[in-house]
Amino acid sequence: MSGSSFGKIFRITTWGESHGPGIGVVIDGCPAGLALASEQIQEFLDRRRPGQSRYTTKRNETDSVEILSGIFEGKTTGTPISLLVRNQDQRSRDYGNIAELFRPGHADYPFTEKYGIRDYRGGGRSSGRETIGRVAAGAVASLLLKELGISVRAYTKAIGPYSIDEADYHYSEIKENSLYMPNNSVAEQAGEYISSLMAQRDSCGGVIECIADGLPVGLGEPVFDKLDALLAQAVMSVGAVKGVEIGDGFAAAQSSGSRNNDPFFSEEGRICKKSNHAGGTLGGMSDGSRLILRAAVKPTSSIARTQQTVSVYGENTEITVLGRHDPVIVPRAVVVVESMTAITLADLLLQNMTAKMEHLKKIY
Amino acid sequence: MSGSSFGKIFRITTWGESHGPGIGVVIDGCPAGLALASEQIQEFLDRRRPGQSRYTTKRNETDSVEILSGIFEGKTTGTPISLLVRNQDQRSRDYGNIAELFRPGHADYPFTEKYGIRDYRGGGRSSGRETIGRVAAGAVASLLLKELGISVRAYTKAIGPYSIDEADYHYSEIKENSLYMPNNSVAEQAGEYISSLMAQRDSCGGVIECIADGLPVGLGEPVFDKLDALLAQAVMSVGAVKGVEIGDGFAAAQSSGSRNNDPFFSEEGRICKKSNHAGGTLGGMSDGSRLILRAAVKPTSSIARTQQTVSVYGENTEITVLGRHDPVIVPRAVVVVESMTAITLADLLLQNMTAKMEHLKKIY
Amino acid sequence: MSGSSFGKIFRITTWGESHGPGIGVVIDGCPAGLALASEQIQEFLDRRRPGQSRYTTKRNETDSVEILSGIFEGKTTGTPISLLVRNQDQRSRDYGNIAELFRPGHADYPFTEKYGIRDYRGGGRSSGRETIGRVAAGAVASLLLKELGISVRAYTKAIGPYSIDEADYHYSEIKENSLYMPNNSVAEQAGEYISSLMAQRDSCGGVIECIADGLPVGLGEPVFDKLDALLAQAVMSVGAVKGVEIGDGFAAAQSSGSRNNDPFFSEEGRICKKSNHAGGTLGGMSDGSRLILRAAVKPTSSIARTQQTVSVYGENTEITVLGRHDPVIVPRAVVVVESMTAITLADLLLQNMTAKMEHLKKIY
Amino acid sequence: MSGSSFGKIFRITTWGESHGPGIGVVIDGCPAGLALASEQIQEFLDRRRPGQSRYTTKRNETDSVEILSGIFEGKTTGTPISLLVRNQDQRSRDYGNIAELFRPGHADYPFTEKYGIRDYRGGGRSSGRETIGRVAAGAVASLLLKELGISVRAYTKAIGPYSIDEADYHYSEIKENSLYMPNNSVAEQAGEYISSLMAQRDSCGGVIECIADGLPVGLGEPVFDKLDALLAQAVMSVGAVKGVEIGDGFAAAQSSGSRNNDPFFSEEGRICKKSNHAGGTLGGMSDGSRLILRAAVKPTSSIARTQQTVSVYGENTEITVLGRHDPVIVPRAVVVVESMTAITLADLLLQNMTAKMEHLKKIY
Repeated sequence: MSGSSFGKIFRITTWGESHGPGIGVVIDGCPAGLALASEQIQEFLDRRRPGQSRYTTKRNETDSVEILSGIFEGKTTGTPISLLVRNQDQRSRDYGNIAELFRPGHADYPFTEKYGIRDYRGGGRSSGRETIGRVAAGAVASLLLKELGISVRAYTKAIGPYSIDEADYHYSEIKENSLYMPNNSVAEQAGEYISSLMAQRDSCGGVIECIADGLPVGLGEPVFDKLDALLAQAVMSVGAVKGVEIGDGFAAAQSSGSRNNDPFFSEEGRICKKSNHAGGTLGGMSDGSRLILRAAVKPTSSIARTQQTVSVYGENTEITVLGRHDPVIVPRAVVVVESMTAITLADLLLQNMTAKMEHLKKIY
Repeated sequence: MSGSSFGKIFRITTWGESHGPGIGVVIDGCPAGLALASEQIQEFLDRRRPGQSRYTTKRNETDSVEILSGIFEGKTTGTPISLLVRNQDQRSRDYGNIAELFRPGHADYPFTEKYGIRDYRGGGRSSGRETIGRVAAGAVASLLLKELGISVRAYTKAIGPYSIDEADYHYSEIKENSLYMPNNSVAEQAGEYISSLMAQRDSCGGVIECIADGLPVGLGEPVFDKLDALLAQAVMSVGAVKGVEIGDGFAAAQSSGSRNNDPFFSEEGRICKKSNHAGGTLGGMSDGSRLILRAAVKPTSSIARTQQTVSVYGENTEITVLGRHDPVIVPRAVVVVESMTAITLADLLLQNMTAKMEHLKKIY
Repeated sequence: MSGSSFGKIFRITTWGESHGPGIGVVIDGCPAGLALASEQIQEFLDRRRPGQSRYTTKRNETDSVEILSGIFEGKTTGTPISLLVRNQDQRSRDYGNIAELFRPGHADYPFTEKYGIRDYRGGGRSSGRETIGRVAAGAVASLLLKELGISVRAYTKAIGPYSIDEADYHYSEIKENSLYMPNNSVAEQAGEYISSLMAQRDSCGGVIECIADGLPVGLGEPVFDKLDALLAQAVMSVGAVKGVEIGDGFAAAQSSGSRNNDPFFSEEGRICKKSNHAGGTLGGMSDGSRLILRAAVKPTSSIARTQQTVSVYGENTEITVLGRHDPVIVPRAVVVVESMTAITLADLLLQNMTAKMEHLKKIY
Repeated sequence: MSGSSFGKIFRITTWGESHGPGIGVVIDGCPAGLALASEQIQEFLDRRRPGQSRYTTKRNETDSVEILSGIFEGKTTGTPISLLVRNQDQRSRDYGNIAELFRPGHADYPFTEKYGIRDYRGGGRSSGRETIGRVAAGAVASLLLKELGISVRAYTKAIGPYSIDEADYHYSEIKENSLYMPNNSVAEQAGEYISSLMAQRDSCGGVIECIADGLPVGLGEPVFDKLDALLAQAVMSVGAVKGVEIGDGFAAAQSSGSRNNDPFFSEEGRICKKSNHAGGTLGGMSDGSRLILRAAVKPTSSIARTQQTVSVYGENTEITVLGRHDPVIVPRAVVVVESMTAITLADLLLQNMTAKMEHLKKIY
């Protein structure tokens, strides 16, 4: 129970360290009969793969996935799906010089205190490579959702101060720029901003937005396992995320009830909302409108500047974090946020099947 | 598994509807030997009790707690602690007129879709009274934490646009104003703002901040059960919360690595941080500094203005939500956020006991 | 997580001590739309109630159940069902004399070591009254199963050496004798046997058998949550149970493959088995034939004879357990075993709904 | 949640099919700082490896384990331990002829009904090879227990009718015969019995006994997660097991309270029992004496005789199960039962750390 599992029915368990033999995930509880090929998982992994643009680490990993179980003749069998990605470019020598120092902004210090031992090579379990398991599982969850007409998409809303208003979104441009922003010209400005920070051996953060369409009404379990609550856990559990909001989020705190409530109306037999300040959830359940969440991503902690720190022996000293690091992790984290959202939705979709006797009678 | 349990070792299960016989919670996994009296739980419940100021619902409930199990001769026995609060002032007639309408901003519509049946009296399970179980359990968790030198405090940081900067905090003033703000003069302005909204049959929201001191280093489980991730679930699961952030939160997304990283230093054998942009967590584990989280609370959905909506039969219509409602729920939600934080910390404190062989050898 | 919950989707949490204010259970995850009245639960509780025959404790308890939540207008709402039974006849003075002694065959000694504190009044949490919560939940599970055409029945197969062969079963006689045996004349002999043991201040045990009919094929999750494995946990968790077997059980260990395998045949489009040595499970899943399990119940530990023991101070001494005790608990445990079986089946029935995409497409 | 995980804190998740790329397990929650080398895991796997005697399948597998994560410089790090065993000798052509038939005694029929798809090659997930993950995890659990002075040992008590009384046990002989019996001469008779069955293309079963010494008092959680209840689940979840008993088990049902109760006595400050009919548990918790459990193993279902069965198309037909099968699986299942016992104990040992405030104060 050291926290490596997520989900109740569609339940994933990830494992692996940055510089060990590999990284992987076991998905238990995926329904049988879902068509699944390794290429479909690879496509997701390629979206988070390093070395794709000038804004990402130069570490060279193909991150090829191998399906070890759970698939027979191209379909899921209902048994656990085990996925493996071997680590290849493990230059652990890069980390030798920081084995005895606690990097500011990193997990090094509390990890050492908690476990009394630490795999100092590249962050070990706390490395960004840990997200490979999430993304591989996210691919499977996304395919399951797609079968039921549900789509999930994430993109970069902001890089540092360069933020795009919803009015200026061009979804088609997301894949046209290496920052995955829905506006190419803002993306260009943001790119220059990143370059200027790189020149100063500094880094930046940003905001990722994720939307889901096609959800049935009623996903999410009242009280503790609300749709928004589980999404908050899912997304906040991604390494550098420091904040999560649904719909208007923090802005709602400054609104009034009369403005913030979304009025209902009925049209052609369907119940709709005139606005969507709520971001698609009411009482912790999906309300049939678009789900909208945002995650605040902090600036990359690994910077090549000299910083003040403490050694594992408790001595005051300085550190310069070398190695290959992203000046901003937002673009690569986009698919991670999308994956965590898909996994959460797939799990709640399965949980919701048992909500009423009417459902049981359709099956038994 | 309809989502009424939270925590893994210190595990709470809440139950009860707004207008049923009562509300309660079962705490399973509280260690034996903790001194616990019903007065200590009552003290917490009194902080969320309605009818205490002009800004809270006029519903009259004493919310007296009865301990049904788990205590013997003033101490916890290690067996489940069952706590019961009877509902008293159940004017369900107030809700008769809205039994057939979906209130905007409420759970009514998705609840009905999900379950095919709805206890329309006061929101049923989705009522704010559901938090009674959380607060009763939070009292127990807080006492456990206190035994180990850990304190948790929440307060109102902002009401609508009236927000207090950390520089202007006077913690001693929190108990001096009915909004639980750490600055009496801002509280006064906020009070006038609320009054003006009440006059317009409108409502507002705000921001709750919660801090915890005295935490050991290393609480939180890497990957999915990170300290910040579980806090995000815990706090986002509270009815009207639409956003959660840790430390600098969304502001961190606009910072740079060199400013956002908190440098370590060593002093008298202790490892400390020069700043606390991280809000007390690194890599999802407590880092020994103050834990800081904030929750965005939306404006009360129940407003006495006429709103557009749809009936359970799918007809377009209008609704005026009468009954007794808070113009702002922030002050009463303060103790709920504090409780959810305490419960999360108590659970992770117990989970962390099994992190290393060194701990086992101290006990066996 | 002190072990008071059972089930994953249909999840029950019991609480309460023998001599505290009451005993109860919270059922989370019962589907909405199931008709449920307190009389139906009471009927189950009456089957385990003390004071019904000369073979049961004279403790006088009406064990009336109160439904505290989860029901609206006679139907489950999908929210947690909280059930409460107040303790009434709490003569804790009977236990004063054994507060400082460890009763042989009881939980007293390990409980004290584990928790450092013990509610010595009547066994506290380890009392047979703990099963009230199981039976109340079992009533709900049984009603759910009944809606889907599944019946569960338990009865006494043996009292001490008086055992009934399947060939001699008369199911209609189960309710005709106070030992719940499917053969009145064996029941009479067994009754005399119990009387002779009572005269010697001694006690006896027996075997309970439980059968379930109408199960769909495929209940049970391969590997750890097999139908038989979860039934084994469910039934072995009942206080005095020391052994569990499915189908031929221990006798199968002496059989051969050619005799023990149940041949399949097809009849009118249904797949059936010629025999049922397996007791209704194959590979941990229900196979469509009758489910059969047996539980071995040890003799009542509380006997009025003088026994050797040790005090809480570690002194060698003697004990005579007075108070009101059953000379054999088998008849009252029948409904407990039936309840645990029903709860396990209800939970696996819900889990199985998510097994294949085909099921999802029927609902979404 | 398709049932591939076991344990709450020391939690294992197994995956893999008989004829897929491999089999494995992820152990989450193993404390940091435990010395662990792949040779130690291999030693356990070698005990269940096929091809070791004339009574085991001729399938040729080296079953070499690779540690993929969780170990750094020879010690566990507190992160998930991922273990992989590649399948090598996958003659799936052997199974082609039975792809369309349901083998009696096997999971084929309910598996197909449940999932609508079945990996028919060698039983797929329901193959005995699934236990590789259990045994690899069992090795880790056993090492953890050993560090705390706890030993677990299993052996063959009976093969068909050839059973050994406790009085005739010679523990040192267990490793001297290929049936793992604690009596060489009974083992010889049993061997002849197996040979005679093989000649008749038949198979047999037997009884495995497992004992654990050195347990602290108080392991096991009252009510549903009793030590005996979780052991029952753990052991009954092993493929061919049809019954589980603790201590005197089914024999206790025929005993009397005065004979079955184990009297306590105190000696040199330790509390002991004069007898151990209970098999080391009281009230579901370890009582400090030897833990004793037995598992009934059914005869191997795969026999080379012609049996009556049904095809996947529902036609009545006959089947002859060729391929390489053990005439008795008991000897190879010994280490599986030992492993499941060790895993259960390790998990309850960790759970028990949080039982009382006294323990918390030793650590925080």
